[in-house]
Amino acid sequence: MIAAIDLGGTRTKYGLVDDGKVVASSTCPSDARGSLERHLDEVVAHLRIMCVELQITLESCEGLGVLCTGLVDNRAMKVLSTNGKYDDAVDFHFSEWARERTGLPLRMDNDARGALLGEWRYGAGRGVDDLMMVVFGTGIGTAVLIDGKPLTGSHFSGGILGGHILVNSGGRQCTCGAVGCLESEASGWVLPELIRSHALYLESSMQGLDVDTIGFQELLAHAASGDACACAVQEHCFRMWGEALVSFIHLYDPQRIVVGGGLMNSPELVLASFRKTVAKFIWGDLDQVDLVAAQHPNDSGLIGAAALFYLK
Amino acid sequence: MIAAIDLGGTRTKYGLVDDGKVVASSTCPSDARGSLERHLDEVVAHLRIMCVELQITLESCEGLGVLCTGLVDNRAMKVLSTNGKYDDAVDFHFSEWARERTGLPLRMDNDARGALLGEWRYGAGRGVDDLMMVVFGTGIGTAVLIDGKPLTGSHFSGGILGGHILVNSGGRQCTCGAVGCLESEASGWVLPELIRSHALYLESSMQGLDVDTIGFQELLAHAASGDACACAVQEHCFRMWGEALVSFIHLYDPQRIVVGGGLMNSPELVLASFRKTVAKFIWGDLDQVDLVAAQHPNDSGLIGAAALFYLK
Repeated sequence: MIAAIDLGGTRTKYGLVDDGKVVASSTCPSDARGSLERHLDEVVAHLRIMCVELQITLESCEGLGVLCTGLVDNRAMKVLSTNGKYDDAVDFHFSEWARERTGLPLRMDNDARGALLGEWRYGAGRGVDDLMMVVFGTGIGTAVLIDGKPLTGSHFSGGILGGHILVNSGGRQCTCGAVGCLESEASGWVLPELIRSHALYLESSMQGLDVDTIGFQELLAHAASGDACACAVQEHCFRMWGEALVSFIHLYDPQRIVVGGGLMNSPELVLASFRKTVAKFIWGDLDQVDLVAAQHPNDSGLIGAAALFYLK
Repeated sequence: MIAAIDLGGTRTKYGLVDDGKVVASSTCPSDARGSLERHLDEVVAHLRIMCVELQITLESCEGLGVLCTGLVDNRAMKVLSTNGKYDDAVDFHFSEWARERTGLPLRMDNDARGALLGEWRYGAGRGVDDLMMVVFGTGIGTAVLIDGKPLTGSHFSGGILGGHILVNSGGRQCTCGAVGCLESEASGWVLPELIRSHALYLESSMQGLDVDTIGFQELLAHAASGDACACAVQEHCFRMWGEALVSFIHLYDPQRIVVGGGLMNSPELVLASFRKTVAKFIWGDLDQVDLVAAQHPNDSGLIGAAALFYLK
């Protein structure tokens, strides 16, 4: 059994994972503007209660796996940069904290890299050693496995900044400091702005909604009901994402890409669109690349955090 | 001594390389619309004459290294696709041909991947195991070394299609079939079109030239002399290329990028522009990435073809 924590931007998932199966899990708000240490202490308290309910102790687990957004040094077990979340995460001594509070060995990594490992070992990526994971959520997370090893690069950012390829020179300002990133052109966090700034918004049925909190599911539902603004924004996003997949295939040459995140509540619609763009724009025979939905869209973080303990 | 052949789109270089030093070299026109087999036979005849001048025999060499554009299966020693060059290259049995004609063992790879290996072993990439090479010539060639191993991916295209990341949705038609590729937005082959279609071309001193054959050096020279059209096209290209380097750093996280190709006759001007764009747009601390000029801009192909024999 592994105790697993997936520190998200808006909520934290935690749970207990046994051989790739989530035995128990729950969530709590992230409070990413607060103190990470206090938040982690709270999560461990929740995990202890969860253990009591399962009639085990936290100390009997094999280890504690933690995923978080941003750049993570998965050797020194440190967060290197968070893009504005949990200011005290950088230089926080995760291993020391885990040892003091739980006595457990700790492994940690970036959340998308963890999700990739979870899908590779227990999900839609099984048996494929050149694998990519793309998670379309509030932001766009990516991770890459090359020849059975997670790409980390020389500053631990290898493979995980796919949301920040520059796709539109002079385009929208991104949270990362660049302009025209994939994320700032089409992602969950820019969706309200894409909708509001669209010429057709004035005639859209989405005007009645709180656009600031609109997600892909609402957008896709409005598009399905024929709303012209929703259709146009959906088409824009699908095109940008499909073209990004073409770039990723050209750059990494994976055998399979696992697509996850909130967008994948409508996997067939999304994958059909992506496959069409890839078939249209891909180099030569590279359209042999599999595009598949994540097998554990809701639990990939916890399964991935646990999978860190099975990496050589 | 290694006999080396670098099959380019417009001319073929060939020569003899000893421990990373080009002992003798020459070039001949490529005739990429003709037969590859006939062309290779001619090149071998030239190499034999070169050997006579050095008082050695071709058969006394350790091997024959061949680089070419397009996708190359560097295990089966076959060309997989050429993007319109040498129609008979695909399925041509290079190893058999080399054994029959020269008796030498053959190694082959994509030209940019070879150049990367040459710079890694004998040039500006020495001592760095997370390395990228970007060659700005007629097209844009890229290659990537990860943890001391060339990235090949699952279809031998890993790392070499960096010229075909999609940077401008709905942009210019590329030779590869996509639209808005880095190469079709800014590269040697699209340069005449970029110049001719620019609004300032009508007032440009470049009107007196044969624009179809204009290269980066002429463009940079006209820009340096204050020609407004040349300045604008140079600025456009530099910006697109600098932004592509940001994407490459975000995706591969190399420690160093070696920049080569015809563009690098003015290395300081080019690198200063690239460094500025990278510093502006890069994620967090990743501007620690070295951007350096290739050490063997003219011989990287031959040195690289020879370096194939030193790869584990």
